[in-house]
Amino acid sequence: MSGDARQYFALPSPFAMKRGGELRGARVAYETWGELTASRDNAVLILTGLSPSAHAASNAEDPSPGWWEAMIGPGKAIDTSRWFVICVNSLGSDKGSTCAASINPATGEPYRLDFPELSLEDVANAAHAAVSSLGIEQLACLIGCSMGGMGALAYMMLHPGSVRAHISVDTAPQAQPFAIAIRSLQREAIRLDPRWNNGHYSADSYPEDGMSIARKLGVITYRSAMEWNGRFARIRLDPEQRDDNPFGLEFEVESYLEGHAQRFVRTFDPNSYLYLSRASDWFDIAEYGDGNVMEGLRRIHIEKAMVIGVSTDILFPLEQQEQIADGLRAAGAAVDFVALDSPQGHDAFLVDIPNYSRAIGGFLSRL
Amino acid sequence: MSGDARQYFALPSPFAMKRGGELRGARVAYETWGELTASRDNAVLILTGLSPSAHAASNAEDPSPGWWEAMIGPGKAIDTSRWFVICVNSLGSDKGSTCAASINPATGEPYRLDFPELSLEDVANAAHAAVSSLGIEQLACLIGCSMGGMGALAYMMLHPGSVRAHISVDTAPQAQPFAIAIRSLQREAIRLDPRWNNGHYSADSYPEDGMSIARKLGVITYRSAMEWNGRFARIRLDPEQRDDNPFGLEFEVESYLEGHAQRFVRTFDPNSYLYLSRASDWFDIAEYGDGNVMEGLRRIHIEKAMVIGVSTDILFPLEQQEQIADGLRAAGAAVDFVALDSPQGHDAFLVDIPNYSRAIGGFLSRL
Repeated sequence: MSGDARQYFALPSPFAMKRGGELRGARVAYETWGELTASRDNAVLILTGLSPSAHAASNAEDPSPGWWEAMIGPGKAIDTSRWFVICVNSLGSDKGSTCAASINPATGEPYRLDFPELSLEDVANAAHAAVSSLGIEQLACLIGCSMGGMGALAYMMLHPGSVRAHISVDTAPQAQPFAIAIRSLQREAIRLDPRWNNGHYSADSYPEDGMSIARKLGVITYRSAMEWNGRFARIRLDPEQRDDNPFGLEFEVESYLEGHAQRFVRTFDPNSYLYLSRASDWFDIAEYGDGNVMEGLRRIHIEKAMVIGVSTDILFPLEQQEQIADGLRAAGAAVDFVALDSPQGHDAFLVDIPNYSRAIGGFLSRL
Repeated sequence: MSGDARQYFALPSPFAMKRGGELRGARVAYETWGELTASRDNAVLILTGLSPSAHAASNAEDPSPGWWEAMIGPGKAIDTSRWFVICVNSLGSDKGSTCAASINPATGEPYRLDFPELSLEDVANAAHAAVSSLGIEQLACLIGCSMGGMGALAYMMLHPGSVRAHISVDTAPQAQPFAIAIRSLQREAIRLDPRWNNGHYSADSYPEDGMSIARKLGVITYRSAMEWNGRFARIRLDPEQRDDNPFGLEFEVESYLEGHAQRFVRTFDPNSYLYLSRASDWFDIAEYGDGNVMEGLRRIHIEKAMVIGVSTDILFPLEQQEQIADGLRAAGAAVDFVALDSPQGHDAFLVDIPNYSRAIGGFLSRL
């Protein structure tokens, strides 16, 4: 098995959801790179942040660059000449997996807000089912980035013995109130857009304004003030780049945010965004530890882990990565904790490739 | 002169604005506490953040608590038995001063977006005119908080010799891109609200949604993640406090933001908010120093200063207060730099009264 672009795994039907309800005829999209060994012991699964697809890297069928192109490939940190790499699109995401924009087989209409409540445990269970369908009983390594890092904790908790080693990237063992506040406000901006229309938007009447605000707030919290001081300072747009609006774009940082928003608003289904965003708020490993984060983490049993975080991350602060490292260590794993000073904030894992390559490549090479 | 509640000072007419245009028949509101000495050498002026009024503390005519009630009064840090304290409502704010919601004498209609472009230099000039009208040639101390701290730098720059000592509170010598991004997004949320209607809203059709998003984003950046971890953690609302909306309030932090927003949306004129917010983005002391912040600060000549900042402030980070301290020191002032670890973020000056009282009270007592 090698280099197929997007493939689909049909989830067991009905697929029961953690918070109630079920999905029928659901599926998740995934892509793979490299070759699975006969003993099926070289699989690396990547769980993504909120918005990326399963296309983490280019492959023969889809040569366009993936969202982690610099990290995945022959000779790269996640070396596809050694590892069989799988990236699953989250259940609930609109990049090929069943989501709020999918057709509800019971009605023949899109689910919209009739999609059942989504949790990161459901995302993890769907990914686990896809991995199992490939005949893989145990992952050599489970990598989770951002939201996918929380999903990875759920995966290891709910499927004991399914993971040997784990790499935790810029994530958290539970959503803290600052992150909840940011995501709640992003959701509110979408919901307040009249064109959201309680989830009943169309391509012709689409909540672009709400999605734009949500995305800009996302980008503000994914990066860091320090990076922007160096990158944008107080540089202004040329007069011809400005718009006529008296409060319109003037500074380069505003134009940067506008560009990010324009690239995003039509490429992610708003209802699916709401579901995944709320799932992130709900996640709390303490649910598995009698209300205690460390006790929850202590119930995850793996051999080795690397936990990476960034001092400039305001959404998933470094203390939360330290908690993960401490908890997994208390559970008996050999844990490397890597605290980086990358200036790019939460998004450093997508940008500071030299540091993340060194850490992740080093860890994987020692497995 | 003592203890009058809101008074008004009619600005010279026409009052020329920095960026062009002028105001006719404009005024600023102010309040005072304590007694001005015969030699008029005990005046302390307070310039406020974006939203507060001139009612910084209670007085005989208005016994309601002011926004800095705990700091101002007989025996308090800003001791009104010694100092004659003045707080001026910013020009452009709707708390009694001429603003975008005021009647344009040329048309008999509210200015709305015909209000001239507002800068913090205009705010400073208006405050200086009001102080001069009281016969005060030199302030014993000029205190500026948040946006008012930027206005205070403008005041000292534009009116050499008008200030002996200065207290700079949680502010910056220029707007940096992270703060610009936050404020730009707040303005965008208001402007995208269809009821903003290019500034032509009414009480019956009012941009409540946009103001709510703007205020929530403000509160998120005025406080700190650390404070909220202790204060809200992941506490949920009782089921009866939740609303029916499937994505409605669930966590206490969301309810806290909602409460802040509801108290704010109808109490601050949206257009005036836009003008003051943009004025904050525009402020840059480097304009007075050949494009260099330190050189700009070096052109401010006062005897003494205290510069206070908080390590948890993400909107006006501590490095920016350190710049102010270094710059004023390079200009020859004796400067105390106070770096606090208050968990409350930018708003610490309103909340961490023990530490701010000690610093400000100590500095004033040594004058």
